[in-house]
Amino acid sequence: MLYDLTVTQSIRMLQNLDRCLDKASAFAEAKKFEADVLLGSRLAPDQFNLLRQVQVACDTAKAGVARLTGQEPPAHPDDEKTMADAKARIAKVIAYLQTFKPEHFAGAEERHITQPRWAGKYLNGKEFALMHLVPNVYFHVATSYAILRHNGVDVGKKDYLGAMPYKEPAAK
Amino acid sequence: MLYDLTVTQSIRMLQNLDRCLDKASAFAEAKKFEADVLLGSRLAPDQFNLLRQVQVACDTAKAGVARLTGQEPPAHPDDEKTMADAKARIAKVIAYLQTFKPEHFAGAEERHITQPRWAGKYLNGKEFALMHLVPNVYFHVATSYAILRHNGVDVGKKDYLGAMPYKEPAAK
Repeated sequence: MLYDLTVTQSIRMLQNLDRCLDKASAFAEAKKFEADVLLGSRLAPDQFNLLRQVQVACDTAKAGVARLTGQEPPAHPDDEKTMADAKARIAKVIAYLQTFKPEHFAGAEERHITQPRWAGKYLNGKEFALMHLVPNVYFHVATSYAILRHNGVDVGKKDYLGAMPYKEPAAK
Repeated sequence: MLYDLTVTQSIRMLQNLDRCLDKASAFAEAKKFEADVLLGSRLAPDQFNLLRQVQVACDTAKAGVARLTGQEPPAHPDDEKTMADAKARIAKVIAYLQTFKPEHFAGAEERHITQPRWAGKYLNGKEFALMHLVPNVYFHVATSYAILRHNGVDVGKKDYLGAMPYKEPAAK
C-alpha cells in the first residue's frame, strides 16, 4: 500500500500536473502571451510562485520516496526558467519514481525518517508517508492548479485527478 | 492502512481546516469585516466558493469512508450560511468519522465502489481510496486554504499539515 500511495500516486499526480502545464501553454498561446509569465504567478505576495510549487511538488515526492526506502535522491538544481524546463523537471522525477518497485518498501513503515530541519527528531515511515509526504504532494499540485485556475486557464477537476480505471460490472 | 489513510487523516485534515477557519474569523475581526464574507470568496468565477469547498471536503470524506465500509452516510443539507455553520458541519463529519474503527475496513480494498454519476461502473476500494477519496479531500482542503491565503488570512503550511508526532531519538 505504501508503494501505491507514494510512488504510483505521485507519478499520477505529477503526470496530471504536467497536463495542467500543457493547458497553461495552450491558454497562453491562444491569448498571445508568454506562457512562462504564469510560472511567476502566485495567489499571495508571500506565497511560492507556480514554478516553485512545481519544484517543491517534485522534491517532496522524490525525497519522500527516497527517505522511505533508504535511498539518496538525485539532486535537481532549481534553475528552471521556462515552461519546458518545468516539464523537464517533472519528467526527471517521474523517471526516478518509476525505478522503484514494491519490494523497495520492505520495512519502510517502521523506518525512522528525519529531515535536516527536524533537528534530529523523526517520524516512522508510516507517519511520514501519511501525514507529511502525501499531504504535501497534494498541497503543491492543488496549489499549482489553483494558481492556473485563478489565471483563467481552463483546467478542471478531471485534470487534477487524472483518468480513473473504471470497470464495467460483470454481466449477470 | 486504509483506515489510517481515510479516517485518521481525514479527521486530521478537517481539524486543520477548522483551525484555518478560526484564523479567518480572527482576521475578519481584526480588519472589522464580517467573516462570513470569506465564505463567498473564490479564485475564479466558475469555481466553488469557500463554503462549498468546505461542504465538499466534508462530503468527500464522509461518503468515501461510508462507501468503503458499506455504510449509509448521514445526510447533511447544504444550508450553512455562517462561519459557525461551516464549523458545525465540519464537527458533525469529524464526529461521524470517529465512529469508525480499523475492523470496519475488513475487505474494503476489494469492495466494488460506485457513485451515481459513474453510470454503474465501479472502482475497487483500494483504487477508490487512493485515486479518488484521498486526492479529493486534499484538493478541497488545499483549495479552501488557497482561497483564505489569497484573501490575506495568515494561514501557513503548518496550519494545513497539523501537528506532527515527532519523536526524540533514543539516547545512545
